[in-house]
Amino acid sequence: MIKVGIVGGTGYTGVELLRLFAHHPDVKLQAVTSRKEDGMPVAEMYPSLRGRVDIAFSSPEKAKLTECDVVFFATPHGVAMAQAPELLAAGVKIIDLAADFRMQDVAAFEKWYKLPHSCTDLLKEAAYGLVELNREAIRKARIVGNPGCYPTTMQLGFAPLLKAGVIDASHLIADCKSGVSGAGRKAELSLLLSEASDNFKAYGVSGHRHSPETVERLSTLTKEKVGLLFTPHLVPMIRGMHSTLYARLSKDIDNAALQALFEDAYKDEPFVDVMPFGSHPETRTTRASNMLRIAVHRPDNGDTVVVLVVQDNLVKGASGQAVQCMNLMFGLEETTGLLHVPVLP
Amino acid sequence: MIKVGIVGGTGYTGVELLRLFAHHPDVKLQAVTSRKEDGMPVAEMYPSLRGRVDIAFSSPEKAKLTECDVVFFATPHGVAMAQAPELLAAGVKIIDLAADFRMQDVAAFEKWYKLPHSCTDLLKEAAYGLVELNREAIRKARIVGNPGCYPTTMQLGFAPLLKAGVIDASHLIADCKSGVSGAGRKAELSLLLSEASDNFKAYGVSGHRHSPETVERLSTLTKEKVGLLFTPHLVPMIRGMHSTLYARLSKDIDNAALQALFEDAYKDEPFVDVMPFGSHPETRTTRASNMLRIAVHRPDNGDTVVVLVVQDNLVKGASGQAVQCMNLMFGLEETTGLLHVPVLP
Amino acid sequence: MIKVGIVGGTGYTGVELLRLFAHHPDVKLQAVTSRKEDGMPVAEMYPSLRGRVDIAFSSPEKAKLTECDVVFFATPHGVAMAQAPELLAAGVKIIDLAADFRMQDVAAFEKWYKLPHSCTDLLKEAAYGLVELNREAIRKARIVGNPGCYPTTMQLGFAPLLKAGVIDASHLIADCKSGVSGAGRKAELSLLLSEASDNFKAYGVSGHRHSPETVERLSTLTKEKVGLLFTPHLVPMIRGMHSTLYARLSKDIDNAALQALFEDAYKDEPFVDVMPFGSHPETRTTRASNMLRIAVHRPDNGDTVVVLVVQDNLVKGASGQAVQCMNLMFGLEETTGLLHVPVLP
Amino acid sequence: MIKVGIVGGTGYTGVELLRLFAHHPDVKLQAVTSRKEDGMPVAEMYPSLRGRVDIAFSSPEKAKLTECDVVFFATPHGVAMAQAPELLAAGVKIIDLAADFRMQDVAAFEKWYKLPHSCTDLLKEAAYGLVELNREAIRKARIVGNPGCYPTTMQLGFAPLLKAGVIDASHLIADCKSGVSGAGRKAELSLLLSEASDNFKAYGVSGHRHSPETVERLSTLTKEKVGLLFTPHLVPMIRGMHSTLYARLSKDIDNAALQALFEDAYKDEPFVDVMPFGSHPETRTTRASNMLRIAVHRPDNGDTVVVLVVQDNLVKGASGQAVQCMNLMFGLEETTGLLHVPVLP
Repeated sequence: MIKVGIVGGTGYTGVELLRLFAHHPDVKLQAVTSRKEDGMPVAEMYPSLRGRVDIAFSSPEKAKLTECDVVFFATPHGVAMAQAPELLAAGVKIIDLAADFRMQDVAAFEKWYKLPHSCTDLLKEAAYGLVELNREAIRKARIVGNPGCYPTTMQLGFAPLLKAGVIDASHLIADCKSGVSGAGRKAELSLLLSEASDNFKAYGVSGHRHSPETVERLSTLTKEKVGLLFTPHLVPMIRGMHSTLYARLSKDIDNAALQALFEDAYKDEPFVDVMPFGSHPETRTTRASNMLRIAVHRPDNGDTVVVLVVQDNLVKGASGQAVQCMNLMFGLEETTGLLHVPVLP
Repeated sequence: MIKVGIVGGTGYTGVELLRLFAHHPDVKLQAVTSRKEDGMPVAEMYPSLRGRVDIAFSSPEKAKLTECDVVFFATPHGVAMAQAPELLAAGVKIIDLAADFRMQDVAAFEKWYKLPHSCTDLLKEAAYGLVELNREAIRKARIVGNPGCYPTTMQLGFAPLLKAGVIDASHLIADCKSGVSGAGRKAELSLLLSEASDNFKAYGVSGHRHSPETVERLSTLTKEKVGLLFTPHLVPMIRGMHSTLYARLSKDIDNAALQALFEDAYKDEPFVDVMPFGSHPETRTTRASNMLRIAVHRPDNGDTVVVLVVQDNLVKGASGQAVQCMNLMFGLEETTGLLHVPVLP
Repeated sequence: MIKVGIVGGTGYTGVELLRLFAHHPDVKLQAVTSRKEDGMPVAEMYPSLRGRVDIAFSSPEKAKLTECDVVFFATPHGVAMAQAPELLAAGVKIIDLAADFRMQDVAAFEKWYKLPHSCTDLLKEAAYGLVELNREAIRKARIVGNPGCYPTTMQLGFAPLLKAGVIDASHLIADCKSGVSGAGRKAELSLLLSEASDNFKAYGVSGHRHSPETVERLSTLTKEKVGLLFTPHLVPMIRGMHSTLYARLSKDIDNAALQALFEDAYKDEPFVDVMPFGSHPETRTTRASNMLRIAVHRPDNGDTVVVLVVQDNLVKGASGQAVQCMNLMFGLEETTGLLHVPVLP
Repeated sequence: MIKVGIVGGTGYTGVELLRLFAHHPDVKLQAVTSRKEDGMPVAEMYPSLRGRVDIAFSSPEKAKLTECDVVFFATPHGVAMAQAPELLAAGVKIIDLAADFRMQDVAAFEKWYKLPHSCTDLLKEAAYGLVELNREAIRKARIVGNPGCYPTTMQLGFAPLLKAGVIDASHLIADCKSGVSGAGRKAELSLLLSEASDNFKAYGVSGHRHSPETVERLSTLTKEKVGLLFTPHLVPMIRGMHSTLYARLSKDIDNAALQALFEDAYKDEPFVDVMPFGSHPETRTTRASNMLRIAVHRPDNGDTVVVLVVQDNLVKGASGQAVQCMNLMFGLEETTGLLHVPVLP
């Protein structure tokens, strides 16, 4: 059994980790920390876990995280890098669901997250946790920077086209839509049901920190730095993410070949489903599961490819992906504990 | 492996059975019938099942249901009783999610469902599928009439009080609220998002067919026929049911003893969670799981008990309960394939 | 033109007052106070008011409220009673949308609102602002305590029965359901879309402060104090309230006479719509309007009457009712500025 | 008083016309036709109109539409063109909310709507009802083809840029999102709350009939035919539309000049609100009003302009726009009956 600790278990990625671990046959949950809720049974805050998670939140001091095999950080940005050196020294592996270990470009990190990076040396060995594009590095890593939710969809949607060199990489457009849980469990007015329900809006149009992360990673697939215009929107629903990706073709390629690029890229992937050409995937077909679905379109047989990508932002976009990484890091079958059938309706 | 057939797999209880069976270790799905969709892969109608359910809908004629061990009817009322004799003769067990085998009172059935009952002899041997109140009969049954969603909450909420004889059984009030999926997958105007969303209403206040079913069953727990006022309401959400039950105390009993009635009644039940006295259970704490939660209140220490009951109407209120019955009928552990942690948020 | 001030214009009842005043032909908006947002244009916080409300929030000090004809308090409980003496002395009328002037029973107020009442003398002259039951007093009042949202529905639903003396007044049950805006514009976790959406729950079952207010008022209609069991619930929608009221008949009365009690009581009321016997009013049929709708049921012709009442909690349940009071207090036609057609769908 | 008839008053654009007319001081509602509901009081189908709309639906035969001054068609495509000749001959003006008189390109109409056009001669005199871009023609018109909801946002968002010639008109991208009411009041499974709620999807990505309409109109503003990629999506909400428009700059222009293009274009428009540069308009700020709001962005000061446009799809996107046209056609103040303040929250 893998001894697991969670730092920051009161947010949505934290409780989603708890749900996933309650189903995972090889995990023993050691500690869930929360300074504020020290002593409160986890199942009291989240009655959905009554009878399934027996431990209480504990303060970081009491949690004995150094006795864990792996610690997940479901925390604000900056927490993981502060605790990483001590944990690594104790032989504990780290999976950070925040941004501390996502980007190699320290300057970009510091600009977008408004934090100095405290362990840039560890950053170098950190593996970016997007399994489908970085599996081998993750398998060997001590530290994984789990991808952002939007970047997961953008990378898996653009990658086959960029690798094949068939699109103009300098002008990618990603029009993305997320359910409200993506903003986290924060007491903010704009996230109230009375504000966000029956409403739709864009945000961060002039710039969003998932953009540099995505650009850095996508640029590893091409010879030059990609150009990306990323527009996030808030959808009045709890879970789900839909990214509509636009790219101009730079080479002559027919639709069957386009589709084949995606099918070939993901044919052995358990969590990426390439749907028939011209499909319209719905976010609900991934609800509460680790599956991500992709469909390719070419409107009017013109020179623009439209790729539709859907996922559950809390699973494949966050906690499920982190468990997928853990499975690899500990030599388990990659799908262990992650084969939930999506909940529909 | 239990060979399972589903008649009428295109509705919500049908697709929920499919989701549950995809997780069930002892089930082999033999056939899913739909006359209208004959030949269409199940996963084409429900892309959430892509890669998880490989068979296609087949017409009843082709489905060879007599080769199954058990057939589930996720159909309109009246279908199961038409096919039951042939299947039983072939040694197939039957679980009907519709109303054909729920009530022993044939006149009441015919009045409320506006159908003649075609096999009243079989009705006599049918077991009512509310496990917590009828476990032994279900274990031995060839035919199970799976309870209605509302009746499940009303019975499990009132039963401990009625059995103990501490309330006035002649004036029970059940003010119940259901998510829209309870109305089924029907192309009706009143169920459109544009009609039912951001809206709340009662329906069937002057009479609803879940009332006679509940009265018949509850009356088996008391010496005389209970009196029940049942008011259903439609909540603008997909899944979830919340029943608010009111009963006047007829005996002197303190709150601790009241609470103990419920805790004792359900202490060994894997799918009934009695929360601390005075709790407010939320429907989402049961979402996509077979768990039902109960909380007892006594406002102002007065003479009225208020019992709050929540469940997922499609799981404990329908398909999950049916699988729970199947597990019993085939000698499996009752919880097999049903231990999903609720999806929250 | 009536010079109007609003204290506390940043909450939902405040912005709803602003919407109503923007349509009101006889109102001049003088000041909207907010200490925190001093100087911020109202339309910057609420872009729905761009081009319609030109003033900025001002601190209470700058707002010159004593120059207004009437001041509305859309504030937390306790604010109005602190400022009332000075305003009244300056000849300004007061309409408090909070609870300071709702109840004559000071002990009950102090128990439920956990505040000492600072001007019990003024309380005596305050009129309870439920127009349909208290019109003449409101017309002459200097101070109006605007009713709570739930109490509005409970009183208008029970009043005709209580006045006629046909029900057992000692055991009224009100099972009420409200949209989330009723909880106000507060940054609380439980009100987030990710928490409250796709969910249903009861709250305050053991006791809620709208209960004593309702009991006090209803008891003025009967010889003895009424007994009320009030259970509020939270509906995943923004606006709308649905109250399901239960009362046992104590006299022999037929359905036509029952219905006539309601039709007679409200036949001249512009904002109370008695629907045909046995109707199921939907909350959306009152959305964004000052209309309240009532329907009477008698299930199985038994001894219990069920009254269904719907309203928009922010209009007839709060700000619209307050404007209705203002119209009366200033000798205007009662319906002035309040004849919005409900927004459906 | 303008005598008004509505053909097809049972759908959402029909009931929205009824809501608007109930507030309109210069309109007398003569007839609302529905063959299916002949004789049913309008307020029985739509209780929100109780006490506000007194007439019943009547069959087209009884409706005496030729005695009206103007007839609105809130019908499926093809109905208006069948009845237009007779009405025009009787001196009745026509406003069609369907597509019959939107496009001059008959071949495109017939391709996309799969209907032969029965009165192409009348088409020539029909005015396209997008007031802000075609005011004078509408003023004089006997027939108005009211724009589609998506085309309204796309045209008002792209027009200032195209007129100024600062963007590459051959590669416009419009990523648009609509509430479910845009699909109409149709008993379709995909529109059920249980299907469309808590879900997000694109549809018609390979081609949608609002594309040729928009291209035809936008091309009148440029020298050559514009190229448009239009992707519609379905948002789980009732009302509201958000269009995210992307265009590559073809000329050197700074942000202040960009913003000025929009402010100059719409400075006298009562129903177009250009928000400050870089704003994020929310659909709810237009709810139930005829206002459309626009905000301009230029991410990273790059070569792509992003224009955000929001409106209520049933008002400015349909019925409100139609009333705006009527006001012009009858010499009324353009804003008559249309100054509803948006309903927020």
